[in-house]
This record gives sequence, structure tokens and C-alpha cells, in this order.
Amino acid sequence: MDYRQAGVDIEAGNEVVRRIRQLLTRFPQPPEVVEGIGGFAGRYRWQGAGDLVAGADGVGTKILLAQALDRFDTIGIDLVAMNVNDVLAAGGRPLFFLDYIAVGRVNPDRLERVLEGVAVGCQEAGCALLGGETAEMPDVYGAEGMDLAGFAVGEVIWQRPRDPAPGDLAVGLASSGFHANGFSLIRAIIRAASLDLDRVYPESGEAVPLGQALLRPTRIYVGAVLPLLTDGTVVGMAHITGGGLTENLPRALPRGLGVRLRPTSWPVPPLMFWLARLGAVPEEEMRRTFNCGLGFVLLVPPERLARVQQHLGAAGIPAFAVGEVVPGEGVEWA
Amino acid sequence: MDYRQAGVDIEAGNEVVRRIRQLLTRFPQPPEVVEGIGGFAGRYRWQGAGDLVAGADGVGTKILLAQALDRFDTIGIDLVAMNVNDVLAAGGRPLFFLDYIAVGRVNPDRLERVLEGVAVGCQEAGCALLGGETAEMPDVYGAEGMDLAGFAVGEVIWQRPRDPAPGDLAVGLASSGFHANGFSLIRAIIRAASLDLDRVYPESGEAVPLGQALLRPTRIYVGAVLPLLTDGTVVGMAHITGGGLTENLPRALPRGLGVRLRPTSWPVPPLMFWLARLGAVPEEEMRRTFNCGLGFVLLVPPERLARVQQHLGAAGIPAFAVGEVVPGEGVEWA
Repeated sequence: MDYRQAGVDIEAGNEVVRRIRQLLTRFPQPPEVVEGIGGFAGRYRWQGAGDLVAGADGVGTKILLAQALDRFDTIGIDLVAMNVNDVLAAGGRPLFFLDYIAVGRVNPDRLERVLEGVAVGCQEAGCALLGGETAEMPDVYGAEGMDLAGFAVGEVIWQRPRDPAPGDLAVGLASSGFHANGFSLIRAIIRAASLDLDRVYPESGEAVPLGQALLRPTRIYVGAVLPLLTDGTVVGMAHITGGGLTENLPRALPRGLGVRLRPTSWPVPPLMFWLARLGAVPEEEMRRTFNCGLGFVLLVPPERLARVQQHLGAAGIPAFAVGEVVPGEGVEWA
Repeated sequence: MDYRQAGVDIEAGNEVVRRIRQLLTRFPQPPEVVEGIGGFAGRYRWQGAGDLVAGADGVGTKILLAQALDRFDTIGIDLVAMNVNDVLAAGGRPLFFLDYIAVGRVNPDRLERVLEGVAVGCQEAGCALLGGETAEMPDVYGAEGMDLAGFAVGEVIWQRPRDPAPGDLAVGLASSGFHANGFSLIRAIIRAASLDLDRVYPESGEAVPLGQALLRPTRIYVGAVLPLLTDGTVVGMAHITGGGLTENLPRALPRGLGVRLRPTSWPVPPLMFWLARLGAVPEEEMRRTFNCGLGFVLLVPPERLARVQQHLGAAGIPAFAVGEVVPGEGVEWA
């Protein structure tokens, strides 16, 4: 008996490593990467000093949607986005990223597509792809099964001018779709309503097939937000992930303060309303599960609003004044 | 329909967060942790300067053994060990660790045991548990299914006095067992030979039930090896993981050099021979899959051998002069 008979194909694994090396020639890494793929650990020359921030996250069951559609070229962007947006919300400029990809059976073509998405995401976030692990685990995942996890480290560059205070404005940055949250609910609705991923549903407000709209990769806010972190503009930030605005906005606030949102002040994607209605999802549950069209929120003093909106607009990200900081707790939907 | 009906139990998830907070009161974190669990990302105050090293790894299908035995209190140690030993082999002192735990259904008791192992491992490695992610993914994992991944970041403290050269000695540090590699093969052998995990097999050389011997957590080499990295003793290092001595020793060497091992110079655990024989695993395959009793290898100049062995012995790690660096390539079993 050998390892291959036990379900682990070392040759296929080596082929993946070759493909990663080739891939990285198309995505040149920053000079800070002293040692990349191949060593026991990646090595990064950090010239800075101060605080590091680090986060770990996955893409949840959005991976099952990628599998159902047999489209793996953007899920790696989601993976990077979920992690670097977390690092950003903690005030960090992403330095490097590492991935963990677990599969039931190594399919080099498929893994290459996933990793290409990872490389694209890292490029967009301006961080290095420092390393990762591909694990072939027969019996944990089915032959077609897969899970993705990621890990990002950043250096803190945010100089928070002061704590958030009543009267500060919440500026919501448009999401690109569902990002990588809520897919267990989305998939349950799709099953229950017998929706067809390959069909265009005009009533969903999307001009593309449902599956394509759902799979749209998570927006990376790093490039657009970083310039606002060093000039005293931003007093608080939230990355809107699992738990929605309801649970993530309070994480940006000290005790005794909440946010009053004006739900008519920004466009909630019709697709989200449509799916929620099909699934008879209560409004509160929807607000706690979907990002409702806002993927990242900045808290800024009112006098900075115009400048922030102009900057984000120029960066291609629609931004809306969606509410304000108030005494209290949690999120109030006015 | 709500998130719970879709298979995601937010209350159970919150209970896990409560347990983690409680757990961390028993495992005080270093003062460098400015912000731990709860923020968008963990924050670590690094006073140093220079190079960072980072690695990602999982425990492979050893998790299935933990499930089969319903014992989850040490697999977290394996997870930390696989990562911090990689960081160590790259010359790093581990600063912090993050975990990614994916499950089919959140079982707070079980997750607490996993995380307690993670906390124990971090304590032993002298690093902070800076954060992590617990993902409930019905339909990716079965209700009892689970996967673990981890990420460690370290600061490079190793001052390599020179490159390895012919005549340098390979000092093998005893493993504690199979560590977390080769379990797909081990499990296949167990199935094929109808072995009973609860039974003691005297012919295996183990006085405990087979399952317990297999589950023994991976040794963490950080504390014992770190002092040797700053005094000019060590010219090369290898963490013996998937690929065994055969594939990992060459990673410590420049081109044009190999290692000649004397296989009789250290004790290979009888359990490994026994399983290999039961599974009719060819010797070369065994050497490429199991660590053969050595979990970490140091390359040192001959005149340092006595000191290194004395130091490691005092640290409780048996160490053997197992071979020497020779002109050539790869590993030669003399």
C-alpha cells in the first residue's frame, strides 16, 4: 500500500506547486518578499515599526455555489477580500496573505483557478501572497469537495483622530453583492423556491443569470479607504460581514453609542429583497444576514462628508451618508 | 425562513465566543496583544524590527482519528505545532497564531476542547492566540465533520553563521509519534488490517491503545531550539512533515549538497515499522510518509554536537547524530 492508494496524489500536489510558481511569474510580488513559496515559511521584510493586525476568515458556503456553477476563478478574490477588509477595518494596510485550501481530491486546473483569484485579490489589495497550504483530505471532503481559509497580516497605519461621537456620520460604501456571507440561507431559499442558477430573473433586478449575480466577488475596499486613514478623516470603521449592519456597526463604536440608520438613504440591491421575499425571510433577519448593499462603513465628522464621498466616488465606490452616531446602543433603523 | 433553519446556529456560535473568552482568562496572553478576540482583527504590538516569517498548515486527516476516538483535547496542540515548527524552521520565534475551525454543526463543548488544545499549544510555543474564525458550514461538512487550519507569524531571530557545508552533522530531534502527517495512509492500513483503535497491540511497541498512541500530539520544538538560533550553532534546519526526511531535509540545503543518513543511528518507533509491515508499505514510501521518529533536524558543525545534544537533552528532547552533509543531492540512506 502507498500514499497514492490511500487517496493522496503527491504528483498532483507537486503539479499544483509548479502551477503556483508559474502563476506568481504573472503576478510579481513586492520586493519585501524575501522568500516565498517553497521554504518552510514565507519571509517578509517589514521596514515599519509599530502594531500589526491579523485576521483569519473563509468564504463560507459560497464555495458550494462556485462548485454548483463549476466556476472557480473569482472565489479566491472573495477569500482575500474577506480577510483584507477585516484588516482594513482594524486600521491596517495589508502586508501579506496566506491561504489554506483543502480538497477531497487535487484537481490542478481547478486549484490553479482558485489561486489565480487569490493572486488577483492580493494584487488589488496591494499585499504579497506569502504562502499557503493545499491539503488533500479524502474522507473529509468528497472528491469534488473543497474549503478555503485565508489569513492576512497588516501594519496599523490608522491614526484615529478621536473616538466616535454623537453627530458623526455613517458613510456606507456600496457592496458588490452578497460578498461571502449568508450563503447557507441563500442556498436554502434557492432550493425551497426551486430557482435555476442559470436563468435570468428580471424581477431580481439583475440582467445576468442568478448564479452569476450571486457569485460576483467581494469588493476590496483597501485601495479606496487607505488614503482616508492617515489624514484624520475616519473616526471609526466596520466591515459588514456575517451579522450584517446590525452586528458589525456596533463593533466600531464605544459603549454608550449606537447608530441611527435611514434605510431609504441608500439603494438596497433588489436581488436581496427578492430573495428575502421568496424565502419569507423576516426583515430583521435579512438585516442581520445580508449586507443590504453596504459592505464597509466609515464613521466621519459631518464636515468631512463631501470630501469622503468625492474621494470614494473617484475611486469608483458609491458612498452614501446612511445615518449618524447617536447616544444609545446598537443599530436603530429609523 | 431564517438563518437557523438554513443550518446556521448563531446562538451556538455566540456560545463558542463566550467559551473562548473564558478560556483565555485561564491562558493569559502576552502584553503585546493590544486587541484580541472581538475586533475585526487581532492587534499585536511588535517592538522588534526586521523580517517576519509566516506559515499556514492544517492537521490533515488526523482530525478523522480524533473524531473516531471522540477525543478533541489535543488536536489543537497538533495544529499549533505544525505551524510554529514551520516558523521555527524558517528561523522565526513565533509571535502569534490564528486558527480557522470549520464544522458542519457547532458543538460548543467539542469546539472548546479543540480551542483549549490550541491555547495549550500557543502557551508551549510562547506565542499569542491572536484570533481566529469558527465557520459553521452545513453541506460542506457532515454534522460531525470538522477541519482545522492555522496560521503562525514569527520574527526572524536566527543568525545563520554560514551556509551548510560538507561535514556538518545532522542532529535529529525525536518526534512524539506520527505528528500530523501520513494519516490517510495510516487510516487505510487500519481499515485494511481491521485494527481496533481501542486495543493495545504489544507487538506495536506501545503500551497504550492504538488510537491513543496515534493521537499523541505533535511535539513543539520552539522552546528547546530557540536558544540555539542566536549563538551561531545552527547552520540549517528542517521540520519533518509530509514528505518525511526524504523531502524535507533537502529544503535545508543549498544546491549541490545532500545528507547521508545512518538509519541505525536513531530509534525508529516500532509502531511505524509495525504499521508499515501490516500495510505492506515499501521502505522508501515509509520514509517519504512517516517522520521515522525524527520531527525536526538541525544541521550543526561537528564541534558543536556535544553541546547541542546536552542542551536538547536538558530540554527533554532526545537528539541523535543521524548523518552528515555530503556533496550531492537529496537524502542517501547509507
